Amino acid sequence: MTDGPPKVTGTAVYADDLRLPNMLHGKILRSPHAHARIVSVDTSKAEALPGVMGVVTGKDAPVRYGILPIGHDEAAFCVDKARYIGDEIAAVCATSEQIAEEALDLIEVEYEVLPAYTNYEDAMACDDPDLWLHADRKSNIEKQYHHHFGDVEKGFQEARESGGAVRFDRYYNPRVTHAPMEPHACVAQWEHEGRVTLWTSTQTPHYVHRTLAKVLEMEMSAIRVIKPFVGGGFGGKSETFAHEVAACLLAKKTARPVKFNFSREEVFYTHRGRPEQYVELKTGVTKDGRITAVEAKVIQDGGAYCSYGVVTILYSGALIAALYDIQNIKFDGYRVLTNKPACGPMRGHGTVGVRFGFESQIDMLAAEIGMDAGEIRLRNKLKPNTVTVNDLRVTSYGYDICLEKVIEASDWKNKRGKMPYGKGVGMGGSHYVSGAANSIIRSKLPHSTVSIKIDYDGAVTVYTGAAEIGQGTETIHAQIVAEEMGVNLSRIRIIAADSALTPVDLGSYSSRVTFMAGNAAKDAARDIKQQLFRVAAELLGESPEHLIAREEKIYPKNEPHRSISYQEALLACIENGGTLIAKGSYTPPTESQGGSFRGAGVGPGVSYSYAAQVAEVTVDPETGRFIVDKIWAAHDCGRALNPLTVEGQIEGSVWMGLGQAVAEEQVFQKGLTMNPSLLEYKSATSLESPPIETFIVETIDPEGPFGAKEAGEGSLAATIPAVANAIYDAVGIRINDLPLTPERILRAINEQKKKRTGE
Amino acid sequence: MTDGPPKVTGTAVYADDLRLPNMLHGKILRSPHAHARIVSVDTSKAEALPGVMGVVTGKDAPVRYGILPIGHDEAAFCVDKARYIGDEIAAVCATSEQIAEEALDLIEVEYEVLPAYTNYEDAMACDDPDLWLHADRKSNIEKQYHHHFGDVEKGFQEARESGGAVRFDRYYNPRVTHAPMEPHACVAQWEHEGRVTLWTSTQTPHYVHRTLAKVLEMEMSAIRVIKPFVGGGFGGKSETFAHEVAACLLAKKTARPVKFNFSREEVFYTHRGRPEQYVELKTGVTKDGRITAVEAKVIQDGGAYCSYGVVTILYSGALIAALYDIQNIKFDGYRVLTNKPACGPMRGHGTVGVRFGFESQIDMLAAEIGMDAGEIRLRNKLKPNTVTVNDLRVTSYGYDICLEKVIEASDWKNKRGKMPYGKGVGMGGSHYVSGAANSIIRSKLPHSTVSIKIDYDGAVTVYTGAAEIGQGTETIHAQIVAEEMGVNLSRIRIIAADSALTPVDLGSYSSRVTFMAGNAAKDAARDIKQQLFRVAAELLGESPEHLIAREEKIYPKNEPHRSISYQEALLACIENGGTLIAKGSYTPPTESQGGSFRGAGVGPGVSYSYAAQVAEVTVDPETGRFIVDKIWAAHDCGRALNPLTVEGQIEGSVWMGLGQAVAEEQVFQKGLTMNPSLLEYKSATSLESPPIETFIVETIDPEGPFGAKEAGEGSLAATIPAVANAIYDAVGIRINDLPLTPERILRAINEQKKKRTGE
Repeated sequence: MTDGPPKVTGTAVYADDLRLPNMLHGKILRSPHAHARIVSVDTSKAEALPGVMGVVTGKDAPVRYGILPIGHDEAAFCVDKARYIGDEIAAVCATSEQIAEEALDLIEVEYEVLPAYTNYEDAMACDDPDLWLHADRKSNIEKQYHHHFGDVEKGFQEARESGGAVRFDRYYNPRVTHAPMEPHACVAQWEHEGRVTLWTSTQTPHYVHRTLAKVLEMEMSAIRVIKPFVGGGFGGKSETFAHEVAACLLAKKTARPVKFNFSREEVFYTHRGRPEQYVELKTGVTKDGRITAVEAKVIQDGGAYCSYGVVTILYSGALIAALYDIQNIKFDGYRVLTNKPACGPMRGHGTVGVRFGFESQIDMLAAEIGMDAGEIRLRNKLKPNTVTVNDLRVTSYGYDICLEKVIEASDWKNKRGKMPYGKGVGMGGSHYVSGAANSIIRSKLPHSTVSIKIDYDGAVTVYTGAAEIGQGTETIHAQIVAEEMGVNLSRIRIIAADSALTPVDLGSYSSRVTFMAGNAAKDAARDIKQQLFRVAAELLGESPEHLIAREEKIYPKNEPHRSISYQEALLACIENGGTLIAKGSYTPPTESQGGSFRGAGVGPGVSYSYAAQVAEVTVDPETGRFIVDKIWAAHDCGRALNPLTVEGQIEGSVWMGLGQAVAEEQVFQKGLTMNPSLLEYKSATSLESPPIETFIVETIDPEGPFGAKEAGEGSLAATIPAVANAIYDAVGIRINDLPLTPERILRAINEQKKKRTGE
Repeated sequence: MTDGPPKVTGTAVYADDLRLPNMLHGKILRSPHAHARIVSVDTSKAEALPGVMGVVTGKDAPVRYGILPIGHDEAAFCVDKARYIGDEIAAVCATSEQIAEEALDLIEVEYEVLPAYTNYEDAMACDDPDLWLHADRKSNIEKQYHHHFGDVEKGFQEARESGGAVRFDRYYNPRVTHAPMEPHACVAQWEHEGRVTLWTSTQTPHYVHRTLAKVLEMEMSAIRVIKPFVGGGFGGKSETFAHEVAACLLAKKTARPVKFNFSREEVFYTHRGRPEQYVELKTGVTKDGRITAVEAKVIQDGGAYCSYGVVTILYSGALIAALYDIQNIKFDGYRVLTNKPACGPMRGHGTVGVRFGFESQIDMLAAEIGMDAGEIRLRNKLKPNTVTVNDLRVTSYGYDICLEKVIEASDWKNKRGKMPYGKGVGMGGSHYVSGAANSIIRSKLPHSTVSIKIDYDGAVTVYTGAAEIGQGTETIHAQIVAEEMGVNLSRIRIIAADSALTPVDLGSYSSRVTFMAGNAAKDAARDIKQQLFRVAAELLGESPEHLIAREEKIYPKNEPHRSISYQEALLACIENGGTLIAKGSYTPPTESQGGSFRGAGVGPGVSYSYAAQVAEVTVDPETGRFIVDKIWAAHDCGRALNPLTVEGQIEGSVWMGLGQAVAEEQVFQKGLTMNPSLLEYKSATSLESPPIETFIVETIDPEGPFGAKEAGEGSLAATIPAVANAIYDAVGIRINDLPLTPERILRAINEQKKKRTGE
């Protein structure tokens, strides 16, 4: 509603569309070495180039930061070392982009090249402290988790004793990236009296605000962060980046606005995508299909900096417990530092790699015990209002309904194992948090606050810090407020993501916005409605608690004929003290914050979405090429506040999962990104995008606004194993390494043939 | 503080600085006739001109409006008749200003020229209803007031019987205009879903908002009015103008942004300045200098439309009672419609013409009874907390102190009547309302509401609808909030005059902003401080009412060592419910709303400022040229919240009064403005601007915020009679017609010589 028309008509203003008077253009010099000590940086020649107005290097912003307290391992620019090819050395601003580019060549950097650690084994093995990526870590292992809930050995034994099955498998997920349509961009303007305003394409304006205060060594109150339209983030714009700091510093130096706009290549260097990861899984099921134990080992190659890496590795283990009822879980997770661009959060953050493995393996276990792959999933369903073995609180659970939907719609029972060679169906399940229950900022501060202003013009202005990044949050805010207040949607105006104007919201990540900002918006709307009710009650001679608000009228429940209009109540209310204002806020309840598991950090979600999918494929056994013919996708989003948006999110997730299943992979040679463009880094095109039939499952979550849960991420992880399992169903091969390329399929088919023919 | 640096550095964005993508440029076709029936308007040729994107005429916006309910006598464009040379016939928008200009020539208008009434006598005498300016008026008299308080005949008799004096004099004030640096300009952008945003150079964004809703026949909630930087108004931008309506209509027609920016000539046509007025005054004083009665007749030539004219004529009479203690007052006021550009409010609105007469006449009366001109003024002072004979409530009164200040500083007693021929000093007094007590909108709605948001960054965002037009209101808001909250001024950020973001404030007119919006800001700051106190009190183990806030600390009164910091209290407070928000509002107290006099409409002020001035002049009797050597100006502004701003306002008022005293006059021939440029319409230049010594008198008004009253207008009216009286003191002549040109002075000197020499 709110963002569609300006996007379609081209009037939407993205960061790169901003043109301020006297604006300068910035460019970043990046390291050509994967690992190198910086001996010296001489910017004098660059500064002397006519048109160059300012240069900054690591010395100008040495304060280290990171999104998580544990991860304060980066500064805006390299200070001592460059840690990957593309790491930021310096920035220049000039009167044109061309001059800025030219100036980069004039910056003289003396490097002492160091051995680069570009895979996890070498990095983990390095025992020379001088060569560790970060001198203050005790190794190149950024973080490791070792959890054991219940008793897995007992679980495996139980499986074996029941005549069930226990499997051990290895899975490989390559490094993939978000590839949003809009590259990172920002404009900074230094204001009088030492204030700065930054317009930036970000998912987390508030975290940028916090970090800038730290790095610029300024009061937060002197910094204003504004998020203009954002052309996609998917996790890749969830923290503060060098260009944002550089823009502020250069704007200060030059007293002129400074813009940065990344090239596509730079987006690949900035990355923060999904890490390459190795997954070892051991799972036991009883004869009757009950999962008795899971033992998982996950190693993630996280690149040169921490970013959200400790969350990625934590989620990989913790969320295993929230999809199926599993009482014995052991998890060993390793986040490893390597000399490659830093990984971070990406849609389905932390769950995708493990889910590919688990959903593949459960398929094989089902086959081993002779059970249908749908049936084994249904047998292990959680109950709603469960607290898992690792203290995750599941308030609503529609996974079983999702499974039933796609089983029925896809005609699963008549297809699975029953189609001709080359055709197959496969199933996958997944889930995701609706926001993280624990905040990375001071713990008791609300995660979202929303305020509302109504003046006698009747317009309802909703101030929210939430970041619309294409997912429709502003429309959702408007709907929630209009619904709660009983007024027309056309009255609502959203003011969002401007730190000066709007209350703090932690940002668009972990699928938290509809849930948390939505709850805050509903709370604010309820407050302002009560203000109207108190005055309306007097006018109607009723008590406020008997009143309801519908279609711009306020009336006693069941007595719509005794109504007064919204406008009338509003005027009377404003006469009693001016413009109406109200606020609402949301802090996750203590019970959702992870109990004894809380020690693991920002672990648990407040509630969880569920998804099940069936993919149907046709494999050409001669070439290994395959087509995904159709995907049936069901998603439990609690309540679909805007079904069109939910469908869009499901389809987008499926498409993104599909890309990762069939094609996407960042390729490196000695730390150099070999495919840093959208021509070389291949996502699924429209030709490779199958029809998707979506099913919205509404479990009405008790904690969500009007029962809503997340819809934006949870469906992604199911697509990959669904496709992999369908390929197995079609041609009988298992591929445990993503992506599922024709080469790998053909090789597997040929190997299978060799085995069969005994060659 | 808030507006200076961007103005000085050139980064301030005024309406004409706005450049939106695909923006079109609008131009207005104006009537060449002072009075003419419109037979037809054919825009087809204009529309056919390449580059022309839209044309609107009276038919597109026929809804009549006006700023006052009584004055709904204009539509955006002429519908039936043109009523002055310059009246708006149609508007064109095109891809360039040049094409739009060209298109104006292609609009074919057939006029039936009517007799024009370009002076008040002819206009009042017209008894042909067909020729009245507005068919629905009963004559060309827009409004007449006839008030009689006390008994003036008894008063005059008392004066005569005491051996005092009674004088009858006539005074003439020409039509003068505001001449702000920035011409009127606006940009409209039609939004999706039938919404429109208008950026406009206005003093009254809220009135523009209301009027647009009426004229565009849209919900107010669908309209957003934003005031960018404004380069001066002085009353001339206090209502809705044709270009604002046209911009919205053309933006709708073309789905592109449309800008209008007036030429200087158009500013003169739009006018709304001070009317030409004829003042007859009869005043009696007793032998000991007590004013016993005043009888006044005022006729104002108001031009073609009402605008604020009924207020102008009302103030002319009503405010006579609020400067001196006068118990018998008779007033006959006439606001007349003529075929000239409409007059409206201008700095010192309604008081200036009468004050010139009264302050001249009291000088003559003093001379007649042999009393010093300062002494006679002091003898007639009001008492504070007086209710005048016509029910004006005066809460604080520093006129006597102002008089004493300038008498002493100017060495009045050694100069008046004691300097050589050609040198003289003169005195003038004046006063002004601090806002109008009665609103022109629904009466019980607050006149100002201000809200405040504080998030944990500690920044204090103040949302105010008040319109900064160069007078410093944003700085004043910031100061009031910082002072009330006890935080640093640097924390305050002002968001102002955006109908979507900010609460309603009635605008910048009648010197109401510091007083009313200031009170609302103080109220909001107090509310938010109390929120902090409640939490701080718990932390300190104190009760909230014992706490004070100073220098970013909160502590029990007299125990600064037991403090907690603002930031600490803030965090604790936000943890209890999110971002802090609060609001404050101001509605004038019933007692200030004019009692029985209220029937006169928007008459009384909430409180009154006072000013006294002494001017010293040197007159060259050979040429009639004179120099104002110096002006001593004292102003009672209640409390000077920002002394620099108050001084600036006093100096600006004196300078503007001086211009009117010595040079300014709009000249007409048959309704045609003869001097519509700043070369021909002469204001005082720096060469003609004397040193001004200002004295701030602080009476600490009980109703004003921290005791403040108005400072922006009240000093203007004193300057004119001070100069006129000084000329009398210098060369013994009285000039009752403004401006005080060398020609008039020389003529008077020569006539005086003739009389003396008996020629």
